[in-house]
Amino acid sequence: MPYRAPISDYELLFRHVVGFDQIAATEKFADASEDVVSAILNEAGKMCEEVMAPLQRPGDLEPARLENGVLRTSPGYGDGWKAIAEGGWIGMSGNPEYGGMGLPMTLTTAVNEMMSAACLSLQLAPLMTQGQIEALEHHASDELKALYLPKMMAGEWSGTMNLTEPQAGSDVGALTSKAEPNGDGTYAVSGQKIYISWGDNDFAENICHLVLARLPGAVPGTKGISLFLVPKYLPDENGNPGVANDLKVVSLEHKMGLHGSPTCVMQYDGAKGWLVGKEHGGMAAMFTMMNNARLGVGGQGVGAAEGAYQHALAYALERKQGKTPSGTIIDHADVRRMLMSMRADTFAARAIMLANAAAIDMATATGDPEWVARAALLTPIGKAFGTETGMRVSETGVQVHGGMGFIEETGAAQYYRDVRVTAIYEGTNGIQAMDLVARKMMDGGEAAARLLDEIEDHAEKARATLPDLAGPVWEATESLRETTEWIVAQGDMNVRFAGAVPYLNAFARVLGAHFHLKAALAETDGPRFKLARFYINALLPEYAGLLVQAQNGADDVYALSAEELAA
Amino acid sequence: MPYRAPISDYELLFRHVVGFDQIAATEKFADASEDVVSAILNEAGKMCEEVMAPLQRPGDLEPARLENGVLRTSPGYGDGWKAIAEGGWIGMSGNPEYGGMGLPMTLTTAVNEMMSAACLSLQLAPLMTQGQIEALEHHASDELKALYLPKMMAGEWSGTMNLTEPQAGSDVGALTSKAEPNGDGTYAVSGQKIYISWGDNDFAENICHLVLARLPGAVPGTKGISLFLVPKYLPDENGNPGVANDLKVVSLEHKMGLHGSPTCVMQYDGAKGWLVGKEHGGMAAMFTMMNNARLGVGGQGVGAAEGAYQHALAYALERKQGKTPSGTIIDHADVRRMLMSMRADTFAARAIMLANAAAIDMATATGDPEWVARAALLTPIGKAFGTETGMRVSETGVQVHGGMGFIEETGAAQYYRDVRVTAIYEGTNGIQAMDLVARKMMDGGEAAARLLDEIEDHAEKARATLPDLAGPVWEATESLRETTEWIVAQGDMNVRFAGAVPYLNAFARVLGAHFHLKAALAETDGPRFKLARFYINALLPEYAGLLVQAQNGADDVYALSAEELAA
Repeated sequence: MPYRAPISDYELLFRHVVGFDQIAATEKFADASEDVVSAILNEAGKMCEEVMAPLQRPGDLEPARLENGVLRTSPGYGDGWKAIAEGGWIGMSGNPEYGGMGLPMTLTTAVNEMMSAACLSLQLAPLMTQGQIEALEHHASDELKALYLPKMMAGEWSGTMNLTEPQAGSDVGALTSKAEPNGDGTYAVSGQKIYISWGDNDFAENICHLVLARLPGAVPGTKGISLFLVPKYLPDENGNPGVANDLKVVSLEHKMGLHGSPTCVMQYDGAKGWLVGKEHGGMAAMFTMMNNARLGVGGQGVGAAEGAYQHALAYALERKQGKTPSGTIIDHADVRRMLMSMRADTFAARAIMLANAAAIDMATATGDPEWVARAALLTPIGKAFGTETGMRVSETGVQVHGGMGFIEETGAAQYYRDVRVTAIYEGTNGIQAMDLVARKMMDGGEAAARLLDEIEDHAEKARATLPDLAGPVWEATESLRETTEWIVAQGDMNVRFAGAVPYLNAFARVLGAHFHLKAALAETDGPRFKLARFYINALLPEYAGLLVQAQNGADDVYALSAEELAA
Repeated sequence: MPYRAPISDYELLFRHVVGFDQIAATEKFADASEDVVSAILNEAGKMCEEVMAPLQRPGDLEPARLENGVLRTSPGYGDGWKAIAEGGWIGMSGNPEYGGMGLPMTLTTAVNEMMSAACLSLQLAPLMTQGQIEALEHHASDELKALYLPKMMAGEWSGTMNLTEPQAGSDVGALTSKAEPNGDGTYAVSGQKIYISWGDNDFAENICHLVLARLPGAVPGTKGISLFLVPKYLPDENGNPGVANDLKVVSLEHKMGLHGSPTCVMQYDGAKGWLVGKEHGGMAAMFTMMNNARLGVGGQGVGAAEGAYQHALAYALERKQGKTPSGTIIDHADVRRMLMSMRADTFAARAIMLANAAAIDMATATGDPEWVARAALLTPIGKAFGTETGMRVSETGVQVHGGMGFIEETGAAQYYRDVRVTAIYEGTNGIQAMDLVARKMMDGGEAAARLLDEIEDHAEKARATLPDLAGPVWEATESLRETTEWIVAQGDMNVRFAGAVPYLNAFARVLGAHFHLKAALAETDGPRFKLARFYINALLPEYAGLLVQAQNGADDVYALSAEELAA
């Protein structure tokens, strides 16, 4: 299953679409010159092609397993982790003070996407660790940072997120895990956590769990939640892993895909932990970690889409069938339609993820509230559309394979199975859409309007060069603006929520068209233009039906009672 | 995993939507009175609920396996087959002369759908057998019919279809299996066939293979193909299974889903076979079997959708999360949207399948060429949209489950994995769409126009009662008519093919709206009306974007060269 890192796509996107020059012009990211970026993309790409891609199938065939309480990872995963760690890819965007490279998230997003395309199961381990690094950087004490961050950035230690409990999923405020002060500044953490990705492994010296729990007397709901750092082994006086903490992996889930990534049920029995952030301030720290993870998960969707696309294309180029000029199925119009759809959607989703990361970088570098708002607006769209694209493209990839798509040995089915969870974890795509129409519209739609203005301005300017593409982009944006204004005007949140998912998808469709148009302008007689033309002519028009549904209100979705739904 | 047969849906559809009264008024189907239909639906439904539904998980967990060349089916499957056979469900639409019940395909389609919902893997066995029964009824000699049909209808023997070879999938004309005359009226069949669903089992006394092969001197392509009946055991003079034939199961495929259904690689080494139909006339016989199977596979998609819907609804009604009136997730607007979409699409797809079957029944009973053309037109739409609905609804079913959807023990993932192949086998959905815009438009679009006239006439009449629903249905139909006329005018087949899949999906959207409108008229203040309103307001509008893509032509899909696609 060869994988080829799409370096030229990133380079074009950086240069012409998401404005990387702006980022490199800031003081914070002054080191991220074009040469550095190119060298990093190529080096990371090579690692993904040579080290990670060969681990994709073995992880599916020989899942991680629990042997007498000891977690054994899939064959080769230890070496894969080592390569990721030694490349510096875990701490790429980490604070250089603690051993990170201090590079923009835009670049990390590209590298993470490549790792996802090569081997999604393994990539989830550094992704979780990156989320923890960011949470600790922002919220942990200097002492904790000094002890933990260098180890995590170097990949000596790995990190996990422990939010969910059996009764507390999307409603995280319902969690009941407890933390009792030990009297020495540490806490005894107890409770059961589920769906803990990479809750354990056999390649990192220590596993650091960030665990949400309640202090004694905490108020109910999210305001009574605190965050604790709970290591598998307690660091000794030299900062090395010492005695085992009171926690264990109870069991692993049997999942539809992502078999190489152990999904653990974790039990904490008075495990020693350290408070991260303020008492009862766990949600703030958690959101730092989750926003990072949402960007990362959207990128997982895009990576899986890229992998599925390359895989399907390779099959189409070699599968002989029917009387066609080349003798292979690549000449069939419907196969071309599928491949073009896969590629155009993957490009759109990738651009959205990188634009999201670029907004985060600009917010970090400048503190400008407009960039902060832009990043916040794009996060749910990127997460949901990136993963939606992963599902859709991998589904089409199976279809391109015909009967072979259903047979596991081709690997097409694995992309389809693996990526499915990305639409669910780190906040389901429904939760993302609700976030978009509620929290992200608390500004009265101002951040959205600013973005739509930009898109329309750009389309206006593009009319001179590419009128046939610019026109539809402008019109679609104007329709999206009308629906956005309608949404903001709805006081009944259920009216917004009933149309939230189609609204988010329409927003992503329009954003994708905007980025395709930018790419087309950079290459008005080349492949980018042709891909953009296909997207704008064939895929963009979907927005209209989605916006109708977005504005349909709540009455229709609640029209049938629970009893009538079951009748 | 309980399953409840949706009897009231079928009864409403029969009575008010697909015109079952017309069928029952023919001489051929005069026995299919409302009482008989109701009794059969209830009896079959009970068998599905009590016998087949409990076999859904065991088939996934303990797949069929090959033990020293002997095929062992999943636990309980033998008893399941026996219940299906004893209920008479295999030969329901078979000729009574040979032990069938002679009932309309409309009824068989409903029963097959229920069996699919309860246990898709096992249901594929009687479905394949039904296809063979129909092929033999139409094309076999009286002698073969007398020997084989009673055994197959009674479920003593089972049947398979052997078309595909490694180099001959969608391009069936490329097959190379051979049949040499033995001189005694029989033939020696040799070759390898792949993807043979239920190529063997341990519950039927004999397995009857219908095998496509070439006679000596046959012309290349589909015109040189003949069909042979090749039994696992050669019948002795009493018609009982005698000596083993020269054929074997070489291996089973390792598939993404449908684990309970063995997918075999079959090897024929001079196996004794009997010609079915004329020499070099294999494709005609094959099409009889395939059209039957396409109707059946569309129904599999609908069945899987129904199963996934019921499963997700049950979860939503019991999963506590968040502060809602009922305390469960059923109160969330986005969960309602998902459930309503699942239900509305399932209803639309079911109506299309039953309308397709009803057209087949009317064609059979009356020989009227308009009914023949209607049946031919609806077959690719039903197959593709039924299976597309199965995929979409089971995907949404996973989403309703949140994190639990990715965990295999809930069963939500199984629907998603199992149904995936239905969009591929019996002609991929792309092949169906090409069939629709090419072969099925060879009449200059006449059959399609007749159907669209009917829909518009109906909408016109419905305006008086339900103007808000009838208006959009009429408009959507008019747009579909314009696109249909545009397609018929395209001489370049690749122009048609490039937009074939979106065109088919738009056609299905409009048909679904028509059938929802009919149901709404039958129950203007009840749940059917509310479901129709949701479908027409929220889902129907998708047609517009699909029609734009349908008319986009071939230039955009071929714009990138194979090299550019790979760059």
